[in-house]
Amino acid sequence: MMSNRVSVFRKEHFNAAHRLNNPNWSDEKNERVYGKCNNFNYHGHNYDLIVKLTGEVDPETGYVYDMKLLSDLIKEQILDRFDHKNLNLDTEEFKDLNPSAENIAIVIHQILREKIDPTFDLKVLLYETERNYVEYPTN
Amino acid sequence: MMSNRVSVFRKEHFNAAHRLNNPNWSDEKNERVYGKCNNFNYHGHNYDLIVKLTGEVDPETGYVYDMKLLSDLIKEQILDRFDHKNLNLDTEEFKDLNPSAENIAIVIHQILREKIDPTFDLKVLLYETERNYVEYPTN
Amino acid sequence: MMSNRVSVFRKEHFNAAHRLNNPNWSDEKNERVYGKCNNFNYHGHNYDLIVKLTGEVDPETGYVYDMKLLSDLIKEQILDRFDHKNLNLDTEEFKDLNPSAENIAIVIHQILREKIDPTFDLKVLLYETERNYVEYPTN
Amino acid sequence: MMSNRVSVFRKEHFNAAHRLNNPNWSDEKNERVYGKCNNFNYHGHNYDLIVKLTGEVDPETGYVYDMKLLSDLIKEQILDRFDHKNLNLDTEEFKDLNPSAENIAIVIHQILREKIDPTFDLKVLLYETERNYVEYPTN
Amino acid sequence: MMSNRVSVFRKEHFNAAHRLNNPNWSDEKNERVYGKCNNFNYHGHNYDLIVKLTGEVDPETGYVYDMKLLSDLIKEQILDRFDHKNLNLDTEEFKDLNPSAENIAIVIHQILREKIDPTFDLKVLLYETERNYVEYPTN
Amino acid sequence: MMSNRVSVFRKEHFNAAHRLNNPNWSDEKNERVYGKCNNFNYHGHNYDLIVKLTGEVDPETGYVYDMKLLSDLIKEQILDRFDHKNLNLDTEEFKDLNPSAENIAIVIHQILREKIDPTFDLKVLLYETERNYVEYPTN
Repeated sequence: MMSNRVSVFRKEHFNAAHRLNNPNWSDEKNERVYGKCNNFNYHGHNYDLIVKLTGEVDPETGYVYDMKLLSDLIKEQILDRFDHKNLNLDTEEFKDLNPSAENIAIVIHQILREKIDPTFDLKVLLYETERNYVEYPTN
Repeated sequence: MMSNRVSVFRKEHFNAAHRLNNPNWSDEKNERVYGKCNNFNYHGHNYDLIVKLTGEVDPETGYVYDMKLLSDLIKEQILDRFDHKNLNLDTEEFKDLNPSAENIAIVIHQILREKIDPTFDLKVLLYETERNYVEYPTN
Repeated sequence: MMSNRVSVFRKEHFNAAHRLNNPNWSDEKNERVYGKCNNFNYHGHNYDLIVKLTGEVDPETGYVYDMKLLSDLIKEQILDRFDHKNLNLDTEEFKDLNPSAENIAIVIHQILREKIDPTFDLKVLLYETERNYVEYPTN
Repeated sequence: MMSNRVSVFRKEHFNAAHRLNNPNWSDEKNERVYGKCNNFNYHGHNYDLIVKLTGEVDPETGYVYDMKLLSDLIKEQILDRFDHKNLNLDTEEFKDLNPSAENIAIVIHQILREKIDPTFDLKVLLYETERNYVEYPTN
Repeated sequence: MMSNRVSVFRKEHFNAAHRLNNPNWSDEKNERVYGKCNNFNYHGHNYDLIVKLTGEVDPETGYVYDMKLLSDLIKEQILDRFDHKNLNLDTEEFKDLNPSAENIAIVIHQILREKIDPTFDLKVLLYETERNYVEYPTN
Repeated sequence: MMSNRVSVFRKEHFNAAHRLNNPNWSDEKNERVYGKCNNFNYHGHNYDLIVKLTGEVDPETGYVYDMKLLSDLIKEQILDRFDHKNLNLDTEEFKDLNPSAENIAIVIHQILREKIDPTFDLKVLLYETERNYVEYPTN
């Protein structure tokens, strides 16, 4: 018999400034490795965030997870923290961690993982631009 | 040696009305659980449906599956059944089943699964809106 | 010298059910004219609404119109009225008016026109699907 | 006889940080007017820029304007100046001008206008997000 | 009193091969002017075509133009002619005319203009790629 | 402890002409199997290519793979080879292999696999149109 596990996806959006820089490196090495992303005064992105939850469909509601609650959770935990912020200067999470798309996705996963029942699988997709995006964890 | 299994995807589209409601619950509970989706007179969506088939590439045709045939199959089996319909009132499938995105995806999978040779893996993605979508079965 | 008039656009979204039907016509004529859109039990759409305002840039703010206020106005006046509703049964505006995309755009324009200072030009774009949309008024 | 004037559009993309702030106002007023866009340490966007040129089709080439040249011109004049920059701190243009979407569009228009033959009409569309965008000049 | 003129838009799609080449020029000049678009053996595109009609809303139907009829007209007149074709070799229209996006839009306009009542204004948008598109006629 | 493996995706774009034809078949069979895709003089597509790499985040850079290098590699190895080309006539790879989306994805995977360190998992998604796309290898 087929399982009734379904994945549900919710897409949200935030705008933030960031800069890639490794303080243990010389300015030259930072520029060589990060190129324009090392710009001293920051640049920014419209980040598209997709959160994927996998679990059993509740036969009473027909839902895996209430998408309104998932949207509210993402707003509270992620958008209120990162939207219209400078990730390097305005957040605890990236004070000592490079805000690359990879690291932002891992951090978002950590934050949400603690708030979502472990019976659900959780995955995070983060679009830095329409052409560059990341997924965590991997299959 | 690498396998020659490839996944092919076909996107189709239908428009339908629906309402989420559990007849075993009070009106108050239905409103609390489903919010605006419980609206008595129905609301509606443009559903985007993506069907994914995985199988071996036929060395003669270069195809996993003829996309014209897949498109025709989806039109016959799914769009003719659900497009421009009220899912709750006009369909057998959702007479006693809540037409949540999760359940619609499971139903579409069941219908197509019987028409597609079991040598192909089959997966269904259903977009209720650009920001809410589901996938069945899960990996 | 160049004028400093700029057009600003805000995109919002609502989901609704509707049915096209002219009560003065026979069932046969309604079916012939409206096809699937005449389905007795309604069908539905994800409507994308784009509101365009044209006016002078305020030299103090750099804004033509505060986009947060415009978004709030659209939510109050349009989304609260039409989102997750059956346009034919749940609204005053379409009790005796066919909820075609054309008429919905005209109605939205009328509602917003009264709430927006006449120094601004106002235009409404309404997407019924990604492939069918309308604009009112015309240039 | 129909004219052979055609409009051609080229879409490009840049990422930048900015902050909206009027130095003549108190901090309280800046926060009240600009909300999150006033964040002290900047935030950022993926800006989509569409440049529209209108002119006669050259009967020899079939072109209104060579799109490769237009793309190169936008890269040289706009992307090299603004991409991966902090608009407030790293550019001459917005040292004393609020980098609102409206003002950015006007500035881009001024820069390109000087480089494009006056026989062509020129219009600029700038998307700050998918849901907020501006057009200059207006029709 | 506001006019009841509304613009309606219908989006269709075709795939075609083409090559830009002026037979009066040397090979060198063709290569210099058209670059990669001059490739001897052709290249191709997924063209997105948007047809815009402007006219009065019929008070009986609520329609400016029946979108099903418009879609059928575009299929018959444009897609059957150009879809999955080599524009240079397989069509009458571009035997002696460079199939640039500008010229394709003008040709599509001419073909449709004869089939659509002159009480309607007609405009054609043609996307050669997501980033290069044209509009005819101009405002 | 969670792994620090992340998938990164880079989207690129190329335009090409192709024709599906099996030289071992009669013209009738080719037409029956491939339909419009068998058109003698070729047709074409805007192909969207997404390359997915999975590997460990480098703690020094915060990167799985430098997206600038990945983009350059795709340009050198894939776009320079296939962009604005006739796949059947202008390339070695499809001289004797049908350029179906499935086969193009397998060929792109082979080419890139040799250039990318085997510690990275590699997957290719290829969009022939917005509604038809393929993925290789499968999960």
